[in-house]
Amino acid sequence: MNEFEIIKQYFTGHCGRKDVIMGPGDDCALLQLPPNTTLAVSTDTLVANVHFFADMDPVALGHRALAVNLSDLAAMGADPCWVSLALTLPEVNETWLKGFCEGFFELAEYYNVALVGGDMTKGPLSITVTVHGSLPEGKALRRNGAKAGDGIYVTGTLGDAALGLQQQLGNITVAEPHQAFVRTKFEHPHPRILAGQALRDIASSALDLSDGLLGDLAHITTASDLRAQLELELLPLSKAMTDTVKQEQAWQLALTGGDDYELCFTVPEMHRGQLETALAHCGVKFTRIGRMVAGEAGVELTADGKPYQLAARSWDHFRSGV
Amino acid sequence: MNEFEIIKQYFTGHCGRKDVIMGPGDDCALLQLPPNTTLAVSTDTLVANVHFFADMDPVALGHRALAVNLSDLAAMGADPCWVSLALTLPEVNETWLKGFCEGFFELAEYYNVALVGGDMTKGPLSITVTVHGSLPEGKALRRNGAKAGDGIYVTGTLGDAALGLQQQLGNITVAEPHQAFVRTKFEHPHPRILAGQALRDIASSALDLSDGLLGDLAHITTASDLRAQLELELLPLSKAMTDTVKQEQAWQLALTGGDDYELCFTVPEMHRGQLETALAHCGVKFTRIGRMVAGEAGVELTADGKPYQLAARSWDHFRSGV
Repeated sequence: MNEFEIIKQYFTGHCGRKDVIMGPGDDCALLQLPPNTTLAVSTDTLVANVHFFADMDPVALGHRALAVNLSDLAAMGADPCWVSLALTLPEVNETWLKGFCEGFFELAEYYNVALVGGDMTKGPLSITVTVHGSLPEGKALRRNGAKAGDGIYVTGTLGDAALGLQQQLGNITVAEPHQAFVRTKFEHPHPRILAGQALRDIASSALDLSDGLLGDLAHITTASDLRAQLELELLPLSKAMTDTVKQEQAWQLALTGGDDYELCFTVPEMHRGQLETALAHCGVKFTRIGRMVAGEAGVELTADGKPYQLAARSWDHFRSGV
Repeated sequence: MNEFEIIKQYFTGHCGRKDVIMGPGDDCALLQLPPNTTLAVSTDTLVANVHFFADMDPVALGHRALAVNLSDLAAMGADPCWVSLALTLPEVNETWLKGFCEGFFELAEYYNVALVGGDMTKGPLSITVTVHGSLPEGKALRRNGAKAGDGIYVTGTLGDAALGLQQQLGNITVAEPHQAFVRTKFEHPHPRILAGQALRDIASSALDLSDGLLGDLAHITTASDLRAQLELELLPLSKAMTDTVKQEQAWQLALTGGDDYELCFTVPEMHRGQLETALAHCGVKFTRIGRMVAGEAGVELTADGKPYQLAARSWDHFRSGV
C-alpha cells in the first residue's frame, strides 16, 4: 500500500462541508471563508515518547491529535472549519491507521471539521495538525485584553489529566472508582469549543491550558502587562483528585500538571451576570479562581490569605535539552 | 533557552503584512483574507534522512522547507500569504537555528510571506510547513481540467535536482563547471510562483513536479480521465545533464528523478499565443513535451516515434516499507 492508496482508503470521503471547494488530492486545498470573518489558524505537533507513549491506543491518539488543536480554536472563540494532518509513520500498520482514523474522524465529525489535506511520510512517529477556524471580525479572544480588576476563571476541574498520566506511569495509585475517569481526562481531552464561542463578547482574554495553569496564565499576564492573584482554595478539583492525593499535591497537579485543555479566561466584573447565563446555556461548569491586578507580570499564589510558594514550574520539554 | 525564548529570538519580527491581525504568540494566528478570494492551503513534511540528509546545510534546509510548500501554491496559481512552521529538533543548537532561519526567512521575505505560527517540539529532526495563499474565486489551476488535444508543458529543465542528488551521493561525477549548478538545483529549488499566477487564465490543469514527471503527470491523467503522450526528444535537458550522462540516463533522471519543483501544465491549443506572452513576461522558459489524448489514464512514452519503455518508476518513500 503506497502513500496515495493509504490516503484514498483512510483519509478521504469523511465529513463534507460546502465551503470546501477542493479537498485532499490536488496541490492545495481550496477553501471558502464566510464573508466578514477572520481566519484563525493553529498548529501543534505531537512526537512519540515526548508528548505521548509510542504504544498509546491509536484511537485515543487520533482523538488527542485533533483535540489539542481544536482547543486552540476554542481559546480564541473560533468556529472550527478545516484541518490538515501531517502524519509521519515508521511503517504502514493498517490496524493502527484504522484506529487512529476512528479517533480522529469521530471528533472531526462531531465538530463538523473537514480534513482538507496534509502529508504522509515515513519516519519516526509524529503528528502535526493544523486547524482552521472562522471568527466574526473583531471578536477573537486574545491574551492581551485583560484589565486590572477582571476576575480569573477556568472551566471544568484542573489537574485530572496529570493525575491520569501519573496513574499510567505507576507513580500514583488512584482509587478504583476514579481510574477510568482520570485515564479519560488524560487520553480524551475535550476541547471547549462551545464555551469559547459563548465567551466571545464576555471575556477580556482567554487561552487554553496545555502546559499547566501557572505557566499558561503567565502568558496572559505578560501579554496584558498585569499581575495575576490566585487563591488556591478556589481551584476546582475533582473528587478523583481530592480522594487520591493531599491538598498540597492536588494544588501542584492543578497548577503545573498540564494537558487539561480547559479554558482559562478573564472577565470584567460588569460581565459576571452574562457569564453565568452564557456558560450555563452550554452546560459548562466554571470557577472564579482569582483576579488580575496592576503590577509586574507574573502569577501570585495565596492560601489562607497568605503568600504560597510552589517548588516545581510549568513543563517545558526543551528545558532538559539546554 | 526554552521554547518561548527560541520563538521570540528566532521566529518573530520578520516580514510584516497588514492582513496579519495576530501573528505568533497567541493560541491562533488571526488572518484577513481579501474579499472575493479563495483560500489555498498546503502542507508538506520533511523528515531527516528520508527527505534530506540530517547534516544538510541548515540555510539550504530552511530554504527548501518553505520552497517545496510554496511550489504547491505555485501549482494552483495562488498568491502566497502566510506560513506556519512546526519544527521538531533533537536539541537546541543555536548555530543551526540561525542558519535555518536565514534560509527560511530569505525566501519568505522574497515572496512577502508572513510566518504566523507553528510549534517547536523536541524529537527526531523533522519539519512540517503549512502555507496559505489566496486566489481570485474560480481561478485555481486544478489537476482535473485537462482536455483531449491540450498540449503538455513543463517549465525549466528536468532532472537536474536528481543529478545534484546523485552527485552528492557520489554515484555520478558531474564535470567541474556544472557542479555548483546541479547542487543548487537540488538544494535550492525555486518555486515557480510567478509562472503559476501567469497561467491562471491560460492552463487547463497544472501541478508541480516533486516526485518525478512520470508519477506526477499520471495524477493529471487520472484526475482528468485522459492519457498523456510524451515525446522524450522534447524533454528539456540542461547542458549539465547532456554533458554528464547519456541520453537514456538523462531521460530516466528527467522522468523519475523528482525534486525539480518545476510546473507541469496543460494548455488548449487556442491559448498557445497567450502562453508565449504570459511566460515570456515573467522570464520563465517552458517547453511543450507532448499532448493529452482520449484513453485510459496513464503516461505513454515515445522516442523517435516509437513506444519507449522505462524500467524504474516514480519515487514512493512508503514502497520499501510495505
